[in-house]
Amino acid sequence: MGRARIALFAGRAHPDLAAAVASELGTELGKCLVENFPDDELQVEIQEEVENRDAFILQPTSPPSAGRLLELMLMADACKRAGALRVTALVPYFGYARQDRRTRPGEPVGARLVAELMETRIDRIAAVDLHTPAIEGFFRAPTENLSAIPLLAEALRHDVSRSSVLVAPDLGAVKIARHHAELLDLPVAHVHKSRLSGSEVRVRGVAGSVEGRSPILVDDMISTGATLASAMKALLDKGCVPEFTIAATHGLLVGDAARRLADFPVTRILLTDSLPPPQFGTLPVRIVGLKGLLAEAIRKLSSGAAQPRPVAF
Amino acid sequence: MGRARIALFAGRAHPDLAAAVASELGTELGKCLVENFPDDELQVEIQEEVENRDAFILQPTSPPSAGRLLELMLMADACKRAGALRVTALVPYFGYARQDRRTRPGEPVGARLVAELMETRIDRIAAVDLHTPAIEGFFRAPTENLSAIPLLAEALRHDVSRSSVLVAPDLGAVKIARHHAELLDLPVAHVHKSRLSGSEVRVRGVAGSVEGRSPILVDDMISTGATLASAMKALLDKGCVPEFTIAATHGLLVGDAARRLADFPVTRILLTDSLPPPQFGTLPVRIVGLKGLLAEAIRKLSSGAAQPRPVAF
Amino acid sequence: MGRARIALFAGRAHPDLAAAVASELGTELGKCLVENFPDDELQVEIQEEVENRDAFILQPTSPPSAGRLLELMLMADACKRAGALRVTALVPYFGYARQDRRTRPGEPVGARLVAELMETRIDRIAAVDLHTPAIEGFFRAPTENLSAIPLLAEALRHDVSRSSVLVAPDLGAVKIARHHAELLDLPVAHVHKSRLSGSEVRVRGVAGSVEGRSPILVDDMISTGATLASAMKALLDKGCVPEFTIAATHGLLVGDAARRLADFPVTRILLTDSLPPPQFGTLPVRIVGLKGLLAEAIRKLSSGAAQPRPVAF
Amino acid sequence: MGRARIALFAGRAHPDLAAAVASELGTELGKCLVENFPDDELQVEIQEEVENRDAFILQPTSPPSAGRLLELMLMADACKRAGALRVTALVPYFGYARQDRRTRPGEPVGARLVAELMETRIDRIAAVDLHTPAIEGFFRAPTENLSAIPLLAEALRHDVSRSSVLVAPDLGAVKIARHHAELLDLPVAHVHKSRLSGSEVRVRGVAGSVEGRSPILVDDMISTGATLASAMKALLDKGCVPEFTIAATHGLLVGDAARRLADFPVTRILLTDSLPPPQFGTLPVRIVGLKGLLAEAIRKLSSGAAQPRPVAF
Amino acid sequence: MGRARIALFAGRAHPDLAAAVASELGTELGKCLVENFPDDELQVEIQEEVENRDAFILQPTSPPSAGRLLELMLMADACKRAGALRVTALVPYFGYARQDRRTRPGEPVGARLVAELMETRIDRIAAVDLHTPAIEGFFRAPTENLSAIPLLAEALRHDVSRSSVLVAPDLGAVKIARHHAELLDLPVAHVHKSRLSGSEVRVRGVAGSVEGRSPILVDDMISTGATLASAMKALLDKGCVPEFTIAATHGLLVGDAARRLADFPVTRILLTDSLPPPQFGTLPVRIVGLKGLLAEAIRKLSSGAAQPRPVAF
Amino acid sequence: MGRARIALFAGRAHPDLAAAVASELGTELGKCLVENFPDDELQVEIQEEVENRDAFILQPTSPPSAGRLLELMLMADACKRAGALRVTALVPYFGYARQDRRTRPGEPVGARLVAELMETRIDRIAAVDLHTPAIEGFFRAPTENLSAIPLLAEALRHDVSRSSVLVAPDLGAVKIARHHAELLDLPVAHVHKSRLSGSEVRVRGVAGSVEGRSPILVDDMISTGATLASAMKALLDKGCVPEFTIAATHGLLVGDAARRLADFPVTRILLTDSLPPPQFGTLPVRIVGLKGLLAEAIRKLSSGAAQPRPVAF
Repeated sequence: MGRARIALFAGRAHPDLAAAVASELGTELGKCLVENFPDDELQVEIQEEVENRDAFILQPTSPPSAGRLLELMLMADACKRAGALRVTALVPYFGYARQDRRTRPGEPVGARLVAELMETRIDRIAAVDLHTPAIEGFFRAPTENLSAIPLLAEALRHDVSRSSVLVAPDLGAVKIARHHAELLDLPVAHVHKSRLSGSEVRVRGVAGSVEGRSPILVDDMISTGATLASAMKALLDKGCVPEFTIAATHGLLVGDAARRLADFPVTRILLTDSLPPPQFGTLPVRIVGLKGLLAEAIRKLSSGAAQPRPVAF
Repeated sequence: MGRARIALFAGRAHPDLAAAVASELGTELGKCLVENFPDDELQVEIQEEVENRDAFILQPTSPPSAGRLLELMLMADACKRAGALRVTALVPYFGYARQDRRTRPGEPVGARLVAELMETRIDRIAAVDLHTPAIEGFFRAPTENLSAIPLLAEALRHDVSRSSVLVAPDLGAVKIARHHAELLDLPVAHVHKSRLSGSEVRVRGVAGSVEGRSPILVDDMISTGATLASAMKALLDKGCVPEFTIAATHGLLVGDAARRLADFPVTRILLTDSLPPPQFGTLPVRIVGLKGLLAEAIRKLSSGAAQPRPVAF
Repeated sequence: MGRARIALFAGRAHPDLAAAVASELGTELGKCLVENFPDDELQVEIQEEVENRDAFILQPTSPPSAGRLLELMLMADACKRAGALRVTALVPYFGYARQDRRTRPGEPVGARLVAELMETRIDRIAAVDLHTPAIEGFFRAPTENLSAIPLLAEALRHDVSRSSVLVAPDLGAVKIARHHAELLDLPVAHVHKSRLSGSEVRVRGVAGSVEGRSPILVDDMISTGATLASAMKALLDKGCVPEFTIAATHGLLVGDAARRLADFPVTRILLTDSLPPPQFGTLPVRIVGLKGLLAEAIRKLSSGAAQPRPVAF
Repeated sequence: MGRARIALFAGRAHPDLAAAVASELGTELGKCLVENFPDDELQVEIQEEVENRDAFILQPTSPPSAGRLLELMLMADACKRAGALRVTALVPYFGYARQDRRTRPGEPVGARLVAELMETRIDRIAAVDLHTPAIEGFFRAPTENLSAIPLLAEALRHDVSRSSVLVAPDLGAVKIARHHAELLDLPVAHVHKSRLSGSEVRVRGVAGSVEGRSPILVDDMISTGATLASAMKALLDKGCVPEFTIAATHGLLVGDAARRLADFPVTRILLTDSLPPPQFGTLPVRIVGLKGLLAEAIRKLSSGAAQPRPVAF
Repeated sequence: MGRARIALFAGRAHPDLAAAVASELGTELGKCLVENFPDDELQVEIQEEVENRDAFILQPTSPPSAGRLLELMLMADACKRAGALRVTALVPYFGYARQDRRTRPGEPVGARLVAELMETRIDRIAAVDLHTPAIEGFFRAPTENLSAIPLLAEALRHDVSRSSVLVAPDLGAVKIARHHAELLDLPVAHVHKSRLSGSEVRVRGVAGSVEGRSPILVDDMISTGATLASAMKALLDKGCVPEFTIAATHGLLVGDAARRLADFPVTRILLTDSLPPPQFGTLPVRIVGLKGLLAEAIRKLSSGAAQPRPVAF
Repeated sequence: MGRARIALFAGRAHPDLAAAVASELGTELGKCLVENFPDDELQVEIQEEVENRDAFILQPTSPPSAGRLLELMLMADACKRAGALRVTALVPYFGYARQDRRTRPGEPVGARLVAELMETRIDRIAAVDLHTPAIEGFFRAPTENLSAIPLLAEALRHDVSRSSVLVAPDLGAVKIARHHAELLDLPVAHVHKSRLSGSEVRVRGVAGSVEGRSPILVDDMISTGATLASAMKALLDKGCVPEFTIAATHGLLVGDAARRLADFPVTRILLTDSLPPPQFGTLPVRIVGLKGLLAEAIRKLSSGAAQPRPVAF
C-alpha cells in the first residue's frame, strides 16, 4: 500500500527532541494539547487531522514514568479514535526495563506489564538501547531496538588513543563494550565481582589488561552512578591511568549520581538526549543527539512503496 | 466452587481505609512492599502467599492518578504471576471518570482507556459512586458501582429538618439528589444554567422551591468547588436560609476549593473517605467511613458456596 | 497508504437511505443479496468485489433490533471473508442504546454487549445522536457520534420567532436543547420532576420562562411519546402558547405514540430518516434527510492519502 | 475446586423444556425476567443470586434465531456482570448450523459468526445433534455435541421388525442412519442423487436393499420436508412397503412441511423437544423428551469434585 | 489503499512449487534462510526488505507436519517483526485437516488448534481442497479454499470416453465426484459401506451403474491407499472395465500406498504438486501443477486498487 | 475455591520423568493415548475424566522440538475440550529459549512465538532453569522458573574440596556459578573472550584464580559442548588441576558433544533428567532427578485452600 502521510506528535516528556526529529524530517510537529487539569489528571487533544494517517508519538517513559506512560497512552487513544491507521510510539528511554524478570515470587514483571499496557493502543514501538534486549519479546507488536552505540563510538573516536581501553563496569555491559570495541578497534576489559571463597567478602576484580591504560567506561545507562563509582575504584586499584571517559545512552543521574561521579577524575561523559538532561553539576557532559537516528527510523517504518514519489511528507 | 481464601492488599493511595476494611472483615492486610526506586520507578513485592487465592487490592486512583494506577497494575501483575485465582480491584475513587466521551474529535476517551488498562490484569472491579454510571459499560469485567448515598443520607438524617431541601448544584447531580430525597423524605430542587436568549449571557436559575429553606447540596464529588460556589450564590439570590450543608462522596478539594467554599455560610460538609483527606482548612468536614460498604462488597464478591450445602442438586 | 476504493452496502433496515447516500457520493450501492430462508434464518451474499476495498454497511439497528443486528454482522462477516480491508458500520439509529448501565444488579449492560458483538467483525462505527454519548466508550473501535442537531436546527430556523422557546422534555434532553439554542439564538427551558417532600407525589415542574411562548420540544428520540405528552401538559399548565413544535433525531413512535401526540396542539414534528418512517397517522411530520451527513462521514473516513500512485509490482 | 452451586435459567425460546430439566435435577429454575419493551427491545433481569455460581442458560436458537440469540446473550451478560463464575449455554437446537462454509465467495460463514458472538459471554456450550459436527471446532470454548440418537433409537425399538430398514434420505444423513443401525441391529440404505451423464437430468437412486421393507427415515432435522418427500418417492419407486417411519432430532417443519409429509403414508414421526413443537396438523408425531439428556449433561459439566471431600476448607 | 509491493517466501516444505509460482508472477522468491541448528531447532532469517509490504509464505504443512507448521510460524513472526503489513500463508496441503471434530470426548480438535496457532501470526490463508470445507470456519481470518478440481478435470478430459464413470470411493468424496461430473459431462457412482443387518459384517456396495464402464476414482487425497483399494475391489466385483484412473489433489501415499495400488490395474494417477512428490514406485503418476492457481490467488489477494482509478467518488 | 482434583499426563517426550513425578505425588499418570498416524500426524486421546479438574501435562520441548510442542498443544486442547478447569504445562526443558531476541532484523523471536503458541491453550507454565530468565515475561500466563541449581549443588557437595573453584564457561553463566558458590561456599571464576586490540584475534581469558585448583564448570545446558571445550582449554592454559567436573541442568549433547568432551580429563558430569538421556558414550555422567522438584511444584500450584480453615473471615 502506498505510503500514508505521517503525523508526528510530541508528548511532554521530551518536546525538544521531538522538535529536532521533526526538523530533521523537514516537517513540523503535529499540533496537540497536553496539559494537567486542576486535579492533576491529564488533558489531551490532538489538534491535527490524523484520519487514515500513520501517526508517531515521541515520548520517553522517563521519570515520572507512570505519568509519561499514561500521557503516551492518552495520546495514542486520541489518535486511534480520530482515525489514525497506525500508531507508533518512539520511546527513546523505556522505563521499567529493569523489571524484566521476577527475582522473588511476589514481584511483578514490570517491563512486560508496561509492554502490554502500551499494546492496548500502540501498533509499533521503536526504542533505543533497551536495558534487556529480550524486552523486544515482551511485545507482540513489531519492536525496533535502535542502537545509539555507533553514534557514541563516533563521538568518542577523536578522543581515544592507542592506550585507551573499553571497560564494562559490570558483566551486563560486556556486550556493549564489545560493540564499541569493534567500532573503535580497541581492547576490552570488564569489572566483575569475585570472591576468594563463598563465605568471604566479595571483591571487585578486573578481567583484561588496564594497567597504564585510559579507561573508557561504557554502559546503557547511568542511574545512581554507584556501579560506575565502584568500577572506577577497582580500575584505579589495578593501576589504570587516572583519567576516565564515560559513555552511556541514557543519562538518568538520579539522586547523588552527579556528586558521586565528581569524586573521580572523570574527564568527559558522553550521553545521548534519550531523555531530557538532568542536573549534571560540574560534570563535563557532552550530549550526542538522537534526532538523526529517530528520523531515520521514522523514514524506514513509514516506507513501503519504495518507488520514487514526488513530495513525501 | 467452594470459597477460596481471600487476600486483601493495600496500595499506597489509601492504606488507612484498607486497614479499616481488613479490620471490619476480622482479617489482616496481606503483606506487601510498595516503594519507589531512586529513579522513582515503583518497586512492588507481594509478601503473602496468594497461590489459588482470591485477591483484592484496595487502591483509589486519586491524584496522582497515573502513579496510583500503575501501582495498582503492578500489584495485580504480581498477584497474578504468584498464582492468584482472581484479582479484584477496589477503587473507591476512580480517576479519569470524567473523560467518558469525546467533546472534540481529537480527544481520548480517558475513562475507557483506563478501564482497558485495568483489564489487562484485573478480573473484577468495585468502585464507589462512579461519576458516570455508564463507566460500568467501559469494562468487560463485572463491575460493581457501590453507592455511598445511603451512608451519607444516614449521616445527614439527624441534621435535617422539615425546612431542609435537597439541592443538586447542576443537572448532572439531580439523580443523586433524588436518591437522597427518597431516603430522607425531603423535597428536591436543582440549580441550572438558563439564558434569556441564545446570545445573552447565561444566568443560573433554580428549579424547585428553596426560599426560606435550608439547602443540602449534594453531588458525587467536590473538585475545585466552583460549581458549588455558583450554586450557593444562586440559592442565596433565591432567598434560601443562609446555612448550607454539603454532602459528596469524593472530596478532592483541589486548588482553592477549601478557600472558595469558606466564603459561604457552610455549616457542615459530609464526605466519605473514598480518598485520603485533603487539606480542609477550617471547613467543618465530617467523614463518613466506607469500610463497612467495602467489607460488605468483599464478602459478597467472595461468597458463593460459603453456606453449608446439603447435596448440591 | 493510498485511498482504497470504497464499497457501500445496504442492509434491509433502511435501503432508501443507503441509496440516497450512494447517490450523494456519486456512486452506486454494492450488489448484495439479503433474504430469509424458509426457516427465517438470514441468507446473505455480497455480490460485489470487495477484495482489499474499504467497505461500508449502512444499517440502523432499529426494531426488530436483533434481526437487524445479526443481518449487519452477517454482511460484515461476508465482507471480511471476501477480503475487505476494513468494514465500517453506518448505524444511524443504534438500538439498545438505553441499556447503558445496570439499574438493578441482575440486568445486562445491553449497549456494551451490542458494541462487543459488533466489534467481532466491524472495524469502525459511525452513529447518529447516540442516546448516551458515553456509548462511544463501549467501543474499542473508533466511533463517530455524528450530530443531526445542526440539520434539525436549520430546518427549524424559518419557523421560529422571537417568542419561541426551546424546551427539553426531561433533564436528559437539556444538552440537546442547549445545542439548538446556540444555533437558533433562543432561550432554553426544561421540564423536570420535583416533589414537595419525599413522600408526596411528584409533580412536573418547568425551569425557565415559558409563559406566552411557543415551545419547541427537542429530544434525541420519540419512542412511546409519553415523555413528550407529560411535558406538553406541564407547559400548557404554565401558560405556554398552545402550539407545539417537536424535533427529534429518531422517530420510533412505537405503540400509541402517534395517537398520544395527536391529543396535543402539535403543529409540526421534525424527524430525521435515521430509521424508516413509522406510521405517523395524521401527525404533521417533516423529514430531514441524513444522506448528506452520512455521505460526508464516508468521505472523511475513507480519506487519507489521495495522491495518485504509479504502478505496483 | 469444589463444586459450585448451579443456577439454571430459561430463555423464552423453550421454557417448558427448561422446567422439565430443572425438575429432573430436583431443583427449580432461577428466577429471571425476560420481556420486550414497547419498541421490541429485550428487557432482561436475572432475579436470582448468581455470585460465584455456575450458571446454565437453556435456549435453543430456533426461529426467530436472531432474537433468541440476542436474548441468550443478554442473559449471559447479566449473569456474568452479576458475578457468575461460568456461563454454560444449553442450546438444544443451534440455529445457523447449516451456514458452515461458503459456497460462494461473497457468503458469510454464519455458524462461525454465531459461535464467536456466543463466545463473547459464554464459557461452555452444550448442543444436541449439531447439523455439522465440525461446528464444535467453530468454538474455542469446550463444546459438547450431545446425541439424541440413542433416545430416538430406543423409542423406535418396539416398532421395528425384521423387515425394517434404516434409510438416510440423503448422503449427509448416512452417519446418522449407521448410528441407529448399530443400536437397532438393522440394515442401512440411503437415497442419493445420481445422473446418467453429466448433462442429463439427475435422478434419485437408492443404495441398499429396500424392496419389501418398511423404511425408517432418519435425519438430524426436518425443515421444509422436501428432502424427505423426494426420498419417500424414490423408496416407493423401489418397491418399499408403503409405511414410513420418520425420526429426527429437530422438528422445525417450516412452511408447507406438514402438508408435504401428509401426502405420504407416514405412520409415525419421532421428534425430540429440542425446540418448541411446531404445527403438526394431523401428522402422527410422537415427542421424545430431552430433559434426561440435558440434565445429565448439566450434572457432568458441573461435576468435578463431586465425591465427598473431607474438610475442604 | 493502494497495492503494496508483495514479497513471496518459500518454506522448506516445497521450494520447487514456490519457485514456480514466483516465476509465474514474473517475480523472484524473497531471500530467506531456513536451516536447522545442531540441536534441530529451526533457524530462520528473512533476508529481504519487507517493511510495509504484503508478504506471502508458501508452505504446505505436509509431513512432518509439526516441523512444517513451526517453520511457517517462525517465518511469519520474522515477517511481522520486520514490518510486513500483512502475512498470507499459502498452504497447498493443510495438515491435521482430518481432525475436524472429536469422535471421542478425550480427543482434541486438531484442525481448529492448528488454525488458531496459525492465526497468532498469519492474517490470511489460502489452501487447496481442504479435506473438510468447514475448516474455513475454524479460522477467524479470511480463508480461501482454492479448488484444484477444474485443473484435474481438464487434465482428465482427453482420456475420458463415453464409457467412463466418475466414482467416489466413499461417501465423503461424492461432492468431489459431482464437481468433476459437471465439468466432464459424465455420470457419477459411489462406493459405500452397507450391511444386511446391524450385526452382520459390512459389505461395500456401489451406488450407480459401473458395469462395463471405466472408473475414474476421484478423492481429495490419497493417504495409505486403503480406501481406493477397497473401492477398486468393489468395482471389479460389480463388473467394471478393469482399467482404473485415479485423480486426487493431494498425493501423500504414505506407508505401503504405492504397493497397495500397484496390485490393481491402474492406468493413470493424476495428482497435483500440493506437496512434494512421494515415492511412486512404478505407478503411472502424472502431476498437474498448481503454480497457476496459486499465482492467480496471490494476484487476487494482493489486488484491490491496482487498476487506474479516476476520481474515487 | 477448594482444591480441585488434579490429573497428571505425560507427553511422549519424557514419560519416565512423568511417571517418577506421579509416583512422588502418590498418584498415577492419567491415561492417555499419544501415537502417530501412518502419515506421521499425531493422534491424541485423553482417556481419563478431566471434567473440572486441574490438569498438568509434563512435556519437555526437547528435540524434535516442533513435534514435542504440537503434541503438548494437542494434549492441552483435548484436556480443555474435555472440561479441565485449568491446564498447566510442566516443561522441564524449554526449546527455542535461545531465540529470545533478534540479532538481525529478519529474525523471529522464536521463544516469544513459542510462548504465544502455548498460551492458546495453556493457563500456567512451570519450566526449569530457563536459558534466559526474561522468557518468563514472554508469557502472559503465570510462569514458574524452577531452579535445579540447589539439587545440582547438593549432588556436588561431597565431591568438592577446598581447592575446588566454580567456573562459568562464559559470561552468560556467571549468575549460575554465583548461585552454586553461595550454596557450596566456594570461589568463582569465569572464562571470557577478550582481545588485545579491536583488530587482533580474540583470546579467551580467565577472570579469577584457577591455578592449582580443580574447576567445576557450571552452565544451564550442554549443547554441542564447544563452549565447555574452549573453557577447559583456557583453564588448562592457566594451570588448573587437570580434573574437570561439569554440572548443567540440561544435557542435550547434540552432534559430537560427547566426543568433544571426552578429549578432556573430565571426571564427572552432573546433569538432570530434564530431558531424556542422550548418548553419553563413555562420559562419567551422573543424573540428578527432578521428580521431587516437579512434584513439589505441582503441589504448590494446585494448593490454595487445602488446609482446613476455621471461619473464612
